[in-house]
Amino acid sequence: MSAPVWSFLGPAGTFSEMALRAVAPAAVDVEPCPDVPTALDRVREREAASAVVPIENSVEGGVNATIDNLIASSPLVITAEVAIPITFVLAGRAGTRLEDVRAVSTHPHAWAQCRGWAHANLPDAVYVASTSTSAPAKALAEGSETGFQAVLCNPLAAQQYGLDVIAGGVADNPDAVTRFVVISRPGRVCEPTGADKTTLMVQLPHDRAGALLDMLEQFSARGVNLSRIESRPVGDSLGRYRFSIDIEGHIREERVQAAFIGLHRTCPMVRFLGSYPRLDGRPVVVSAGTSDKDFTVARAWVADVLAGRTL
Amino acid sequence: MSAPVWSFLGPAGTFSEMALRAVAPAAVDVEPCPDVPTALDRVREREAASAVVPIENSVEGGVNATIDNLIASSPLVITAEVAIPITFVLAGRAGTRLEDVRAVSTHPHAWAQCRGWAHANLPDAVYVASTSTSAPAKALAEGSETGFQAVLCNPLAAQQYGLDVIAGGVADNPDAVTRFVVISRPGRVCEPTGADKTTLMVQLPHDRAGALLDMLEQFSARGVNLSRIESRPVGDSLGRYRFSIDIEGHIREERVQAAFIGLHRTCPMVRFLGSYPRLDGRPVVVSAGTSDKDFTVARAWVADVLAGRTL
Amino acid sequence: MSAPVWSFLGPAGTFSEMALRAVAPAAVDVEPCPDVPTALDRVREREAASAVVPIENSVEGGVNATIDNLIASSPLVITAEVAIPITFVLAGRAGTRLEDVRAVSTHPHAWAQCRGWAHANLPDAVYVASTSTSAPAKALAEGSETGFQAVLCNPLAAQQYGLDVIAGGVADNPDAVTRFVVISRPGRVCEPTGADKTTLMVQLPHDRAGALLDMLEQFSARGVNLSRIESRPVGDSLGRYRFSIDIEGHIREERVQAAFIGLHRTCPMVRFLGSYPRLDGRPVVVSAGTSDKDFTVARAWVADVLAGRTL
Amino acid sequence: MSAPVWSFLGPAGTFSEMALRAVAPAAVDVEPCPDVPTALDRVREREAASAVVPIENSVEGGVNATIDNLIASSPLVITAEVAIPITFVLAGRAGTRLEDVRAVSTHPHAWAQCRGWAHANLPDAVYVASTSTSAPAKALAEGSETGFQAVLCNPLAAQQYGLDVIAGGVADNPDAVTRFVVISRPGRVCEPTGADKTTLMVQLPHDRAGALLDMLEQFSARGVNLSRIESRPVGDSLGRYRFSIDIEGHIREERVQAAFIGLHRTCPMVRFLGSYPRLDGRPVVVSAGTSDKDFTVARAWVADVLAGRTL
Repeated sequence: MSAPVWSFLGPAGTFSEMALRAVAPAAVDVEPCPDVPTALDRVREREAASAVVPIENSVEGGVNATIDNLIASSPLVITAEVAIPITFVLAGRAGTRLEDVRAVSTHPHAWAQCRGWAHANLPDAVYVASTSTSAPAKALAEGSETGFQAVLCNPLAAQQYGLDVIAGGVADNPDAVTRFVVISRPGRVCEPTGADKTTLMVQLPHDRAGALLDMLEQFSARGVNLSRIESRPVGDSLGRYRFSIDIEGHIREERVQAAFIGLHRTCPMVRFLGSYPRLDGRPVVVSAGTSDKDFTVARAWVADVLAGRTL
Repeated sequence: MSAPVWSFLGPAGTFSEMALRAVAPAAVDVEPCPDVPTALDRVREREAASAVVPIENSVEGGVNATIDNLIASSPLVITAEVAIPITFVLAGRAGTRLEDVRAVSTHPHAWAQCRGWAHANLPDAVYVASTSTSAPAKALAEGSETGFQAVLCNPLAAQQYGLDVIAGGVADNPDAVTRFVVISRPGRVCEPTGADKTTLMVQLPHDRAGALLDMLEQFSARGVNLSRIESRPVGDSLGRYRFSIDIEGHIREERVQAAFIGLHRTCPMVRFLGSYPRLDGRPVVVSAGTSDKDFTVARAWVADVLAGRTL
Repeated sequence: MSAPVWSFLGPAGTFSEMALRAVAPAAVDVEPCPDVPTALDRVREREAASAVVPIENSVEGGVNATIDNLIASSPLVITAEVAIPITFVLAGRAGTRLEDVRAVSTHPHAWAQCRGWAHANLPDAVYVASTSTSAPAKALAEGSETGFQAVLCNPLAAQQYGLDVIAGGVADNPDAVTRFVVISRPGRVCEPTGADKTTLMVQLPHDRAGALLDMLEQFSARGVNLSRIESRPVGDSLGRYRFSIDIEGHIREERVQAAFIGLHRTCPMVRFLGSYPRLDGRPVVVSAGTSDKDFTVARAWVADVLAGRTL
Repeated sequence: MSAPVWSFLGPAGTFSEMALRAVAPAAVDVEPCPDVPTALDRVREREAASAVVPIENSVEGGVNATIDNLIASSPLVITAEVAIPITFVLAGRAGTRLEDVRAVSTHPHAWAQCRGWAHANLPDAVYVASTSTSAPAKALAEGSETGFQAVLCNPLAAQQYGLDVIAGGVADNPDAVTRFVVISRPGRVCEPTGADKTTLMVQLPHDRAGALLDMLEQFSARGVNLSRIESRPVGDSLGRYRFSIDIEGHIREERVQAAFIGLHRTCPMVRFLGSYPRLDGRPVVVSAGTSDKDFTVARAWVADVLAGRTL
């Protein structure tokens, strides 16, 4: 029997691989993919059991490629999450000095997170965009004609590609963190752990004011708290939105189901994208009147009322 | 087999009897009761199948004796409603003229509804309170020493007791109407007609601001409209309230059940007081996303999600 | 210069007089009135500076005669409040024994509060309604032919009319309390004390669902808490309501003004009925972001924005 | 006197330049900038009167570089908006055929919008990321060694750089549109036109559930509709958000000011980012009770109440 196959946002050495190593230290059969859609399609095509991709950065916000792709094709669900501190080094071929650097390459998100340092320390350097943080590191290591002398990448990539670290700690925000998720094909939903999170995508009705308020009340009316909300355009015209949302709790819990039922009734589209243990392990606080027992007792009471057994 | 026994707020000739005749024209076995609690206790004691009592007047508001008694003792439910126009005549013994009237008796609610007319037409007359609109009519008819020369009562009472009408149309508000309800012991709840009303009593949590708003949102979150709301003190101290509420819809409808479940979870007391056809027969408008089908489809979808069958 | 004249709900010896004595112990020029509208009209007619009338009982709820009259004619405002414990005695002419009592008279509200005791101790006695708790005491004391042998009244009335107490502590709820208010003609509104209450009446728009929820949000959006809410029919047909409301705070406070402005904009009728010190003297808790300073700073910021001075 | 200077997101031939030409057809003194922050800093440094930058794409969503920079440094405001249809062509040096294309370059947002076409028509082509849609067009035109044979750019860029169109209409969504804004230094806010939009950024309190709901109620309580909402991370840790919002209406209108005052009172940060005519010219619908007159009448009424002039 073969080991589970993992796909991830490659190439080797990306923060995504660091995330994969964090959730599956023993994984051997891993496949770097050129972009998020490809990594997820590997799971859809049953070529991989799970994919590890970024979903949210504390500085740059949601990762649109992941958020949008999760609902773009056949269903996938999130089964775990992990947060990776985002640290960057300026790396180059052996012997490269800071003053040799006239052009720097990296992913635009990484550039956005090191722009202040680069402005102060490499005021004249040109920025060359790349599709990942490690692709330019690989190019530099391979000795090809790159048009840049240094890359901003994570320490793992510099090490894997045998580059020298010219400068470390170059991120403008030393506390930056990216959250990665493990994504699989849906199956029977697991049992709650008591410290769970649920991800969903919901599209607002667009024909009336207050639709966002109404949608949020579907959660608040059941005591369900949101821990993340990202707006995404529906794509057909300006002014129409979907929301990618994380809530505290598990879809096997009554209050979460009640919220989902409310959304399904009132919104043109709602997609369940997984219930999974939250990375901080902190138990969800269930407010008064919203426990599973509160729901089952209330339903039994209504059944009694209908039967005339009691009031 | 005996005919069903009806109790009502007596004595004979009250608006309650008019209401009883409206809902059960053929009733023969009827029993006038001295007050609302007695009329309802006759039903609780199985001495009557149903009671007819007032619950709301368009001028004076809720009838507290009825509202409070419905939850004061063993459970009862409302099974029907009827509205009776409230018209008053000034009546006296044969030959009494307006200028002979130095004192007038009636129920305080009736007095409140004719005060303007009395002030204008009997400026010097004294008001003598009574426990019903027909008790003083009966007293006058019996020739006892009453201390008043005229009564404000409904035309039926004047006729039944053989009094002369001194002046008709004496109500300050000619459109006044009182709503009466038929009250029975609870049993299996009947099927909806599509034009139903549900009555309930709910007590607010008293330890937090916004409790009334939260309670009302249990209805609005499910598209359930209120047609009546009356505040009543809980009785143990100032500032603590119950609310007597009529909603549009039937407890066998999903959105109404969802609201009841929400109330049961979040309020210290909720009592179901009957689902019954509304007197105007107007079908309830079910807003988008709140039909029974919307609920069952949404619940089936959640079940599919849990089973991993589909998303 | 003459002493201020007080009107109150008479006759002498009522709980209203007890309330008047509590707020103005030195008052000498006092006038008992036969009913609440008369007591209030004395103020409107400038025959009295202030009236003392009941507004709310912890068992029976709002006093409709007071609540409705406050907005029925020319404007009046509440300037103070006081709570009086409601205690009843069964009193009669000298020598009357419990077994002699075949009929008892009192005000219907008083009867409602002693019904349990009467049922247990005077099961066969007839109830004779009266317009106040002390009117029948006066009648009994005057030796007229009353048709009843005992009255339920407060201890003060029994003493004032020289009646014997047949039984004391006859109220079913020994903690019952009635809140009385001092009512005057409006003038420039006084400064807040920091522990104030404001009374108002507001009529709901009747042409849309959720009107009550919307009205309550005018308060909650500004952090204003309600301490009392009573529904009253508008009077023209069933299903249309006004609400008599007490809120925590003073109309000279910004958050209260903002709520009033919101009500004025969105409701067909709103009446200010007085800001006055609350009887418990407890300072109002002002939630974050709703202090006067928060409002003035925010307004100044908007002015700066408009002028382009800063953002 | 010199002509106003415009900065825009360059290089020449971008959609930003198309937007600039749409709002200022006669502009001659224009300066392409390498990125959005630079374009906006030109305005801050008084080197340009206004900048034209993208803010929202109907497919890809908000333009983070613009949204985040608007509040990152000294204040700027939006003074106008324009929408530009996003059309792409595949262009190359003269004589390039589809089968010659082994690598394609463009901005990642453009790539995202043509990915479907590329996948179908250039299944084996490699994607080379670039910082704009016209930079690679320029590089190709200049004949440098680019590593790609074709670019995805707008028709204007192909024309300006003298490239051949290999294929037109290659966008997956032919209705895609990007909204651009004109940004200037703040000054006295202009008068409303009646068909205006206001942009703001507001940060949520992060220490309580329901903060987003509360924030949205500041708008709904005054009848102010949202036409756009984008979440952005505050940047210091996961789970803390700011929202970039467009509302219907002008800050010189009372209801908008009331909403701003409410936000200023209850949120840790709110920034006004401009009131300006909306591009569709459609007059804003002012709901009942929220017109300027409603506010001024209500305020005058409260002033009367305080002075005791009337109720």
